[in-house]
Amino acid sequence: MGSSRRDVLRAAAVGGVGLGLTALGAPAHAEGAEPPRQDQRGKGPRIGILLYEGFSVLDPTGPAEVLSRLPGATVTMIAERPGLVRTDTGDIALLAERSIAQVRDLDVLLVPGGSEKAVLRVFENPRLLDWIRRVHQRTRWTTSVCTGSMILGKAGLLNGLRATTYWAGKDYLETLGATFVKARYVRDGKIITSAGVSAGQDMALYLASLLTDDRTAQAVQLGIEYDPHPPFDTGSPDKADPELRALALKLLADSQV
Amino acid sequence: MGSSRRDVLRAAAVGGVGLGLTALGAPAHAEGAEPPRQDQRGKGPRIGILLYEGFSVLDPTGPAEVLSRLPGATVTMIAERPGLVRTDTGDIALLAERSIAQVRDLDVLLVPGGSEKAVLRVFENPRLLDWIRRVHQRTRWTTSVCTGSMILGKAGLLNGLRATTYWAGKDYLETLGATFVKARYVRDGKIITSAGVSAGQDMALYLASLLTDDRTAQAVQLGIEYDPHPPFDTGSPDKADPELRALALKLLADSQV
Repeated sequence: MGSSRRDVLRAAAVGGVGLGLTALGAPAHAEGAEPPRQDQRGKGPRIGILLYEGFSVLDPTGPAEVLSRLPGATVTMIAERPGLVRTDTGDIALLAERSIAQVRDLDVLLVPGGSEKAVLRVFENPRLLDWIRRVHQRTRWTTSVCTGSMILGKAGLLNGLRATTYWAGKDYLETLGATFVKARYVRDGKIITSAGVSAGQDMALYLASLLTDDRTAQAVQLGIEYDPHPPFDTGSPDKADPELRALALKLLADSQV
Repeated sequence: MGSSRRDVLRAAAVGGVGLGLTALGAPAHAEGAEPPRQDQRGKGPRIGILLYEGFSVLDPTGPAEVLSRLPGATVTMIAERPGLVRTDTGDIALLAERSIAQVRDLDVLLVPGGSEKAVLRVFENPRLLDWIRRVHQRTRWTTSVCTGSMILGKAGLLNGLRATTYWAGKDYLETLGATFVKARYVRDGKIITSAGVSAGQDMALYLASLLTDDRTAQAVQLGIEYDPHPPFDTGSPDKADPELRALALKLLADSQV
């Protein structure tokens, strides 16, 4: 790396050919790397993420950030109807590019979590639950983040399986036929469920290794500089007192529309 | 917690009043909690996130997930023109609700990172750089994720300051007048920059504590179950060999349009 600083400063001095991220940082053919994506776009895993009104913004976007870096991968946001879909806070909207009617074949289905109200609305939507069941028959991996596992459970996919979910929802998950496991993510057969919100990123890196190999997943982890050091250590209910647990749920509920 | 399992199962048995996330999990008035958000919506911090074509999806959405949980907070996606803005992979589009012309006052400005091409396009957009400079004069906190700090630097905001950025861009950052610091996030005055992509979440929790207090930030961390355990430990360039570093940059570049 001794020469890279000089190279970058030189590049900057001559007009800035780059930020050091691509032009200078990476050899044209990195050892062990796949051919450039432009040659194989769409030839990698087809990842579909189901959006519904009231999803939590990080649940689909954390895994999307990870999985979209796999060679040739495509990430498609899907909803009952194409168009904008709002998050649980009402502040943010993502575009669903495809309707469920347009999508039959996916390598990976990911179901994000959302507000309690939002998940209960999906429970009462047989079109969505039917679609999940149908697509699941052809996936390589069917996955969820946070309360998304409740939706998989309601669709009947978790019967007798080990699974995880948002910490506060673990008892409810068991009413849907699953055995709750306390872990960032749990694989049982071809179903991988993850814990709350941010856990989707850990699950996605594991999934990345299944879709490619450990080395590629490790490179993606470095690519998104995922070396977490939060300023506090209260991310698990075991690390929080009962009042903090209550406050966490209250802030969440109050932020939701 | 002994009775909560029974309560949830009973609730489920009588028709499912909830998933355990709100109805049963949180007391109506949790100790130390603010009044419900519906009473104070819009009275908390006004957080604006600047989108531009080619941003990386996790850069705005990770912090948005954290900051939107603060009492009364609003998160607004902003772009040069209102409408859909696509990520660096081209796969995902977020809605910018407001144009830069519509926004003058923010408590927090957040500038996400993006592909090298995307950041270089912003460098050549004086309207965006002017807007950043103007809004910065009135913010409480001006922040960035990943290569977003390059944009703050190009706008002239990092002159003589300590700052951080994406690991591969640290030398370039120094050509913009900043002193690079290796950290998940760096605060100098009212500017807080963060390291690559996923570091925005760590920064946002720190920022949450500045906007409220440690206890509230800790509750938000639990609210998004941010207790990270990635399957690998290669999220920092120090933990990767040169080939893995090259592969990381190559996967990133190949995934971008």
